Amino acid sequence: MTHIKFDTSKLKPFVHENELAEMQALVTACDQELRAGTGAGHDFRGFLDLPQNYDQTEFARIKTAAQKIQNDSEVFIGIGIGGSYLGARAAIDFLSSTFYNVKNERDVPEVYFCGNSISPNYLADLLAVIGDRDFSINVISKSGTTTEPSIAFRILKAKLIEKYGEEAAKGRIYATTDRAKGALKSEADAEDYAEFVVPDDLGGRFSVLSAVGLLPIAVAGIDLDQLMAGAAAARSDYQDSDLEQNEAYQYAALRNILYRKGYTTELLENYEPNLQYFGEWWKQLAGESEGKDQKGIFPASANFSTDLHSLGQYIQEGRRNLMETVLIIDQPRYDLEIPRTADNLDGLQYLEGKSMDYVNKKAYEGVVLAHTDGGVPVMSVHLPKQDAYTLGYTIYFFEIAIAISGYLNGINPFNQPGVEAYKQNMFALLGRPGYEELGHELNQRL
Amino acid sequence: MTHIKFDTSKLKPFVHENELAEMQALVTACDQELRAGTGAGHDFRGFLDLPQNYDQTEFARIKTAAQKIQNDSEVFIGIGIGGSYLGARAAIDFLSSTFYNVKNERDVPEVYFCGNSISPNYLADLLAVIGDRDFSINVISKSGTTTEPSIAFRILKAKLIEKYGEEAAKGRIYATTDRAKGALKSEADAEDYAEFVVPDDLGGRFSVLSAVGLLPIAVAGIDLDQLMAGAAAARSDYQDSDLEQNEAYQYAALRNILYRKGYTTELLENYEPNLQYFGEWWKQLAGESEGKDQKGIFPASANFSTDLHSLGQYIQEGRRNLMETVLIIDQPRYDLEIPRTADNLDGLQYLEGKSMDYVNKKAYEGVVLAHTDGGVPVMSVHLPKQDAYTLGYTIYFFEIAIAISGYLNGINPFNQPGVEAYKQNMFALLGRPGYEELGHELNQRL
Repeated sequence: MTHIKFDTSKLKPFVHENELAEMQALVTACDQELRAGTGAGHDFRGFLDLPQNYDQTEFARIKTAAQKIQNDSEVFIGIGIGGSYLGARAAIDFLSSTFYNVKNERDVPEVYFCGNSISPNYLADLLAVIGDRDFSINVISKSGTTTEPSIAFRILKAKLIEKYGEEAAKGRIYATTDRAKGALKSEADAEDYAEFVVPDDLGGRFSVLSAVGLLPIAVAGIDLDQLMAGAAAARSDYQDSDLEQNEAYQYAALRNILYRKGYTTELLENYEPNLQYFGEWWKQLAGESEGKDQKGIFPASANFSTDLHSLGQYIQEGRRNLMETVLIIDQPRYDLEIPRTADNLDGLQYLEGKSMDYVNKKAYEGVVLAHTDGGVPVMSVHLPKQDAYTLGYTIYFFEIAIAISGYLNGINPFNQPGVEAYKQNMFALLGRPGYEELGHELNQRL
Repeated sequence: MTHIKFDTSKLKPFVHENELAEMQALVTACDQELRAGTGAGHDFRGFLDLPQNYDQTEFARIKTAAQKIQNDSEVFIGIGIGGSYLGARAAIDFLSSTFYNVKNERDVPEVYFCGNSISPNYLADLLAVIGDRDFSINVISKSGTTTEPSIAFRILKAKLIEKYGEEAAKGRIYATTDRAKGALKSEADAEDYAEFVVPDDLGGRFSVLSAVGLLPIAVAGIDLDQLMAGAAAARSDYQDSDLEQNEAYQYAALRNILYRKGYTTELLENYEPNLQYFGEWWKQLAGESEGKDQKGIFPASANFSTDLHSLGQYIQEGRRNLMETVLIIDQPRYDLEIPRTADNLDGLQYLEGKSMDYVNKKAYEGVVLAHTDGGVPVMSVHLPKQDAYTLGYTIYFFEIAIAISGYLNGINPFNQPGVEAYKQNMFALLGRPGYEELGHELNQRL
């Protein structure tokens, strides 16, 4: 099997040849923190061995559940926020038709996500899409008390009960939650929902290869074995702490080198719209892992060539604090030939008979050189194919790279203390019992 | 009619009371540059009076064309990149069901955009979505030689001809292009396509209220009169250069004040998924207008509360160079009540019977206070409703604010010289005649 290739050949104007090797001692120290568990947040390193050590019995149950859903549902709804939906969404988008809910090439249920906002518009529109069709839901929440998914779950559960009755509704609710405790766990036990586990040693942003991501991904008809095999191959390939051998560690070290030089915003870019949500997944992985203690690379994303006509101007000539990491798919799922025309009014004659992918790749090469000349360091990650194996591999590449990158920046890459701040305020403003004092204080300030 | 409201009440810790007034002389100078046409890029100020001075005859023709398309097409494809699609996409998303291509509440054609990338996957998937259904296309390009839309146009035109024959195909091609010259203009004249005009005095990112945006928007069943009326109201409301009177100018001045203090990245945020593409439209408007001469605010966007579980950690506790502008819809199209349950396992009992929108607004308030406390300046733009009038108003607000903002930063807000760089490289690498020397040079560097 081929693996992804990390290309740093265009960094020469920005990083001297000696610099990477001079990071080795720091990288080795971070590798030790990560592997030996001596670093901060060590309880959440489950992603490291997950592709090898996952629960085979549950894995089989996920596939069986997905088959049942494919057989009895026209619509499948994943309910979750942050890591409880972004990974699955990214995977399904990457591996499916761009318009899979409109025209489905695999003849599986339409897949939607909710509980990732508090928008009544969105949920009302989703209820209309479900209509009177058969549907099932997968509520994904470790605690079962996160506001966004809990509200969506109440509303969708009510719709299930209305349609199928109390008992039959239970057979259409799949709960992915804590192994032992919490509100959703209690409810799932009491109501006899099918249950899957959010492992204790995985933060949400590292959980896509657990049941959290796998059940929605399987419902969409994607080959879980290939996904896990790719991740397992990456795990094997990225075990060496030697920077010369380990491209994930190279990525971690180089973005850290660039950050220290003032390149404080990183754009993850693609040339395939199917990768848009991979960018969103990466933004959570990178931003939530590294953005703390008043430091960290700010993660942004762009979809090319679309955004070359949007952010392109800024990237080429704006403030020089940007770096870019490009995801490029060497072999896309489809290709199309540029048709001939009788005239040459549009000036495209020189491209006739060439493939769109060829043109797309030349655009990529042209952009890399233009941005390099404009003062933006560009790194590239080549994905050989648009398949589940490659996706699993790529997920692992970024997970381990971001973990090392966080340690290199001297922070705990596995916590997210800042996410609590808005929740506390929201609870207080909503009048949740126990928050009266804070509520009073905040209301004064509004 | 109500108008949007710009809320700066939470800026106190970041901007002293005297600062805004002290910007008045600069703002007045920029207002003069813009209104009198003494500033750089003055040939592209057409957006200023467009809501009042648009071509009424063409406006009527757009509506008629939209009706014809609604009657004879199940699918409508807009072909364009950058400003030739983002505005229309943003408008349709804002004013339609979240899943309008899956379940269409207005019984109008499905609407897709292409020619905004060179991805063969995307185009192949789109061809499959069209299938053997009736469709029409609107190719939008001032020159008719931009690579991305030109390729897509060739491929879709071939499909039209295959399905309908040469003659009938012509009746399904709508060309929005230059008034007098260019490849697409020549072809449209020769082939007798229905033609609409990209005005000479509008850059792509300021063109949504011209035929560029209006035809796709009308096909989607949106009320163009209301859209233009809203923009016209904003034009009237934002004519005064006095900062105390002009909220659009306040926004321009305040983001300039904050930029100079080191808040160099601005996040445009929303609490309604229907606004996601408004953020993309804004990113082009702001980034392409201001990102030049090695300066300018870097525009990013976030969709809350989703991204509170993604970028939220970074915003709360990462590097302190962020400012936020929040779009908040005071009265959403729908609301839903949070259902009661027998138990209170999820701890949501205190919200039972409350509306989702109420909770959404409290989340917004809680976030504003949390981020303020975290050191992030937050401004808010209140949109009274989710309707065409409000959208037109809001579009104008941002257009004029960004124009003034660009002048305040001492640059030409209406050009985009950096967008050419990648195109030149791409042409050279593709072997386009006339680019041989550059091609040779670039190939050496790859």
